[in-house]
Amino acid sequence: MEKHTPVETQVRGLAERARAAARVLQQADTRAKNEALLGMAEFIVRDSEEIQKANRKDLRNAEAAGLDAASLDRLTLSEPRLQAMAEGLREIAALPDPVGEIADLKFRPSGIQVGKMRMPIGVIGMIYESRPNVTADAAGLCLKSGNAVILRGGSEAFHSNQAIAERLRAALGRARLPLDAIQVLDTPDRAAVGAMIRMRGLIDIIIPRGGKSLIERISAEATVPVIKHLHGNCHVYVDEFANLDKAVRIVVNAKVQRLGTCNTAESLLVHQAVAGDMLPPIAAALREKGIELRGCPETLKLLPDLAVATEEDYYTEYLGPIISVKVVDSLDAAMDHIAQYGSGHSEAIVTEDYSHARRFLREVDSSSVMVNASTRFADGFEYGLGAEIGISTDKLHVRGPVGLEGLTTQKWIVLGDGHVRQ
Amino acid sequence: MEKHTPVETQVRGLAERARAAARVLQQADTRAKNEALLGMAEFIVRDSEEIQKANRKDLRNAEAAGLDAASLDRLTLSEPRLQAMAEGLREIAALPDPVGEIADLKFRPSGIQVGKMRMPIGVIGMIYESRPNVTADAAGLCLKSGNAVILRGGSEAFHSNQAIAERLRAALGRARLPLDAIQVLDTPDRAAVGAMIRMRGLIDIIIPRGGKSLIERISAEATVPVIKHLHGNCHVYVDEFANLDKAVRIVVNAKVQRLGTCNTAESLLVHQAVAGDMLPPIAAALREKGIELRGCPETLKLLPDLAVATEEDYYTEYLGPIISVKVVDSLDAAMDHIAQYGSGHSEAIVTEDYSHARRFLREVDSSSVMVNASTRFADGFEYGLGAEIGISTDKLHVRGPVGLEGLTTQKWIVLGDGHVRQ
Repeated sequence: MEKHTPVETQVRGLAERARAAARVLQQADTRAKNEALLGMAEFIVRDSEEIQKANRKDLRNAEAAGLDAASLDRLTLSEPRLQAMAEGLREIAALPDPVGEIADLKFRPSGIQVGKMRMPIGVIGMIYESRPNVTADAAGLCLKSGNAVILRGGSEAFHSNQAIAERLRAALGRARLPLDAIQVLDTPDRAAVGAMIRMRGLIDIIIPRGGKSLIERISAEATVPVIKHLHGNCHVYVDEFANLDKAVRIVVNAKVQRLGTCNTAESLLVHQAVAGDMLPPIAAALREKGIELRGCPETLKLLPDLAVATEEDYYTEYLGPIISVKVVDSLDAAMDHIAQYGSGHSEAIVTEDYSHARRFLREVDSSSVMVNASTRFADGFEYGLGAEIGISTDKLHVRGPVGLEGLTTQKWIVLGDGHVRQ
Repeated sequence: MEKHTPVETQVRGLAERARAAARVLQQADTRAKNEALLGMAEFIVRDSEEIQKANRKDLRNAEAAGLDAASLDRLTLSEPRLQAMAEGLREIAALPDPVGEIADLKFRPSGIQVGKMRMPIGVIGMIYESRPNVTADAAGLCLKSGNAVILRGGSEAFHSNQAIAERLRAALGRARLPLDAIQVLDTPDRAAVGAMIRMRGLIDIIIPRGGKSLIERISAEATVPVIKHLHGNCHVYVDEFANLDKAVRIVVNAKVQRLGTCNTAESLLVHQAVAGDMLPPIAAALREKGIELRGCPETLKLLPDLAVATEEDYYTEYLGPIISVKVVDSLDAAMDHIAQYGSGHSEAIVTEDYSHARRFLREVDSSSVMVNASTRFADGFEYGLGAEIGISTDKLHVRGPVGLEGLTTQKWIVLGDGHVRQ
């Protein structure tokens, strides 16, 4: 007989309750789900004092534990941040309900009509670090897409997450939806994550959000499928037919607009025919914003005061004020470099050449491929998905920003009138 | 340092060559792929004598090993079967190329255009049993969708699969496509499968076809994602508002048209209000076709000479001339029964009632849900996908019949004109 540790038994109990709730939620109508989402926003605003009190407890513990300033900032739930959290839930309520949507319904020669209907996946397991706003975002997206969710936040945000989840569940109750649609895994035992990612048959999918090492560990050990976002080593390629103004604008925005995001450019490729004209002004614009450039030998001929980029640099997601630079001798060389060093996240070409744009779009195998636009656009809101629960660098099921549709599946429907197969 | 066994090294070599071929294939144009597919058909017909000679070697070995008649029949490559194999390849050539297809390209408020482009997945690993026609079908579908494939057929079909693969690769060569786009894993060592299903990063997806135990073993051990088809315990529910003629026609077709397929009905549910009128004629029609019925106590009141259906029966995919029967007292009871005992493959309701049809379509969570049509329609050709590489009972990535689209992924594309994010 299989033995279960107490924490496995606890996680299994949560997962079984989630599965029962998922069956109810799958049939829930749009009105009830939206009512719950608006109720969540209402209760978070109404109880913002109490949520901030819980948050201050986390902040005191985190300070005592010596957390750095950036992490403390991420953990802080200010009044404007709680307002933004509520607004996010109201925006999810305003999105169309994906569940039940029928696509491509067509008559077949046999006389039957065949199409696809969008359905919830079932039970989602969210594993995430510090930011407590993920609790509300993830729960809201899972609810709207008809899925039950089990939330496992970072231990440093324990009280904040509990306080938020309490309001979310109160809103479920008022809308007469099952409270177990949103559950928080609240044991400090780290083995709980191990149990969660192996709960095949009860949890349908795991979405981890956090550092690369967390996500790699989860992916390696999970037997439940994982939608993972490993890292973003994004490239901007300035083609020989690039417009200089657009090149400067796009490179600067892709690198500087926010330094720590996954769609920030980490590497700049420039065609050698225009490197002499374009690299110096691009470098000047980046340096003015405090960015350090690390270049290949060809780059250093034009900009001798740069540091040398090592092989390691080209593989690196800096998430900070550094960019690697390489001069390439062709579009093919640029695409080969991206295939070798890139992480398959987002890449942009700056070019006025039709054929180069067309080839780059088709041949680069990343989750987002762009022409004359900043890699910073790779985002659920910018793409019109509404909120996103993460960005997938996987190829299966969902790729790029994951919104409501990525949390659903499609079943086939067949309409007949006594039809049988010949 | 990690040690590799010789068979791991062999599989890794195959997978690395497949990955290199996949990068070429991803860019291959439709004309070259179709030329290769038509060449494959041509060479299989031209060399049918030699393929049959290889097949006879397998058949002699199989007979000596004492294989049963049904397995020997599945293994046999007759002239008509080779013609059908060639025709299948020509049909795949005639299908539209899914690669590069752009969908939903729309302008966003920021001024960028955002859409999705369909792309190959990369490298597919096919693991299958006896039928050698899978070799040609799978290779054809993978090629058309721009994927490299590694084929691992059953040992009993070893010479047949080799002979077929030789013709497929010859056609690749004539079309100037990389031969490594189609490779056969030809070691008799069973550890090769174990190595294949753990080749993360080199093989993108595993598709097993065969018995339930093979697929369960692969799913449990694989670290590469698996598109699996576990089993089909399909239901027909005859509602209280069913039309008797349609009910008889659909139940008989769903059960009898082919006994051994996954979309064959294994269980019949009948509403109690019509059981007295409908069960006797349905039972008579089934028995006339040699089908044994096993019923619940309510069924036995109407048909006292039936065997009793056990709890086990309701979980069973017979793949043979038996059907379990249960009388239910409502639509909800029918859907609860399907949720508990079903395998999520295909279920049909027979009803003239609009609301019952609508609820059944929405609430039953199976890969195909049908109204007044036989479950036997759950099939790639019937749905208009062309050939299918399998039927997925998973929910992620692809559900139901897997055709060309299921072998692809979508990346996001963004078109701008110097656009940056604010």
